[in-house]
Amino acid sequence: VGSVKEAVVSAVRPHLPEGVHFVPGHPLAGTEHSGPYSGFASLFENRWSILTPVEGTDPDAVARLRAFWEACGSNVDIMDADHHDLVLAIVSHLPHLIAYNIVGTAADLEEVTKSEVIKYSAGGFRDFTRLAASDPTMWRDVFLSNKDATLEILGRFTEELFALQRAIRRGDGDHLHAYFTRTRAIRRGIIEAGQDTAAPNFGRVAEKKT
Amino acid sequence: VGSVKEAVVSAVRPHLPEGVHFVPGHPLAGTEHSGPYSGFASLFENRWSILTPVEGTDPDAVARLRAFWEACGSNVDIMDADHHDLVLAIVSHLPHLIAYNIVGTAADLEEVTKSEVIKYSAGGFRDFTRLAASDPTMWRDVFLSNKDATLEILGRFTEELFALQRAIRRGDGDHLHAYFTRTRAIRRGIIEAGQDTAAPNFGRVAEKKT
Repeated sequence: VGSVKEAVVSAVRPHLPEGVHFVPGHPLAGTEHSGPYSGFASLFENRWSILTPVEGTDPDAVARLRAFWEACGSNVDIMDADHHDLVLAIVSHLPHLIAYNIVGTAADLEEVTKSEVIKYSAGGFRDFTRLAASDPTMWRDVFLSNKDATLEILGRFTEELFALQRAIRRGDGDHLHAYFTRTRAIRRGIIEAGQDTAAPNFGRVAEKKT
Repeated sequence: VGSVKEAVVSAVRPHLPEGVHFVPGHPLAGTEHSGPYSGFASLFENRWSILTPVEGTDPDAVARLRAFWEACGSNVDIMDADHHDLVLAIVSHLPHLIAYNIVGTAADLEEVTKSEVIKYSAGGFRDFTRLAASDPTMWRDVFLSNKDATLEILGRFTEELFALQRAIRRGDGDHLHAYFTRTRAIRRGIIEAGQDTAAPNFGRVAEKKT
């Protein structure tokens, strides 16, 4: 398992002994915490695992791994390693990079103190800090080994960011309103697919003053 | 109340009748849902409200509003309208813009389908969709009326993004690791200040397969 497939497949495949089947797989599940003690019994329930078998892999080996993930409660999809890496660049790698980026930007401001950022984080900022608390070593390695797909997706992101920036500068409210409207459908789709909670605020328990 | 202060103060102040005190205020609390029916009893508990009284406001009027917010369970800070708008640009306006941006980018990809983005959103993407489901009309107006501070903060964000992009392109793992390490302290500060939950995954309840 791991968040990048093409680099791993290229490195491992030449060294496989005769009769050994290598079926790379990746469960799309987890929290900001790493390591075996961060697991919990329902971690894979209604999540998706992706298998990226290479050409010539024994179909029986793939079927056994599919059965394994399904036994863990996971759904299973099969795709090419290349496509996996592009999909992961948008659903996982870019979000982590941007989360680190926005938290890092806040930490660097001179005009606004860290204490202000922390106190007022319920304005929206705090949602980014969960991903930005993920393991630095793991994420360094993800970006170094999925460089091409990350840079490709990052290019798209930056283009749209500049269009939004221009709309703000020029006072183009129609562009902003249209853009902000069409993103709602994806949130709705995610909730309908059971991939997030419909409870406001991620279902966070409201904290009592102590 | 409202997320931008300087524009409102400039517009309202010349029209205040004699003896009427105008104390702009803004609670840093709320969810992705708008309107009176989105309120709940503990909404302001251990959150912060910011008051931005203008010069010459009766201190008694400010004290009464402070008492009002404190009675709602909120902490209260007082600052200039200008500083308020800069603080909000980093803790709220930029995060919303970037959330809309990243969800919009995903919706526009040809190589990765919307259905894939939705299925695999637990990879990190889904965290951005909460903010991107906020009210489009309100957010259009926020960006149009807090243009200068938003563009200033956006400039800082883009600078750091380009530095990260260059590090990925050049394989500069040290830059990435150092950047990803220092963002953790802010997450820790937010949890210690009771502004978010320490439970993994925002304390989301793990969904059971249906």
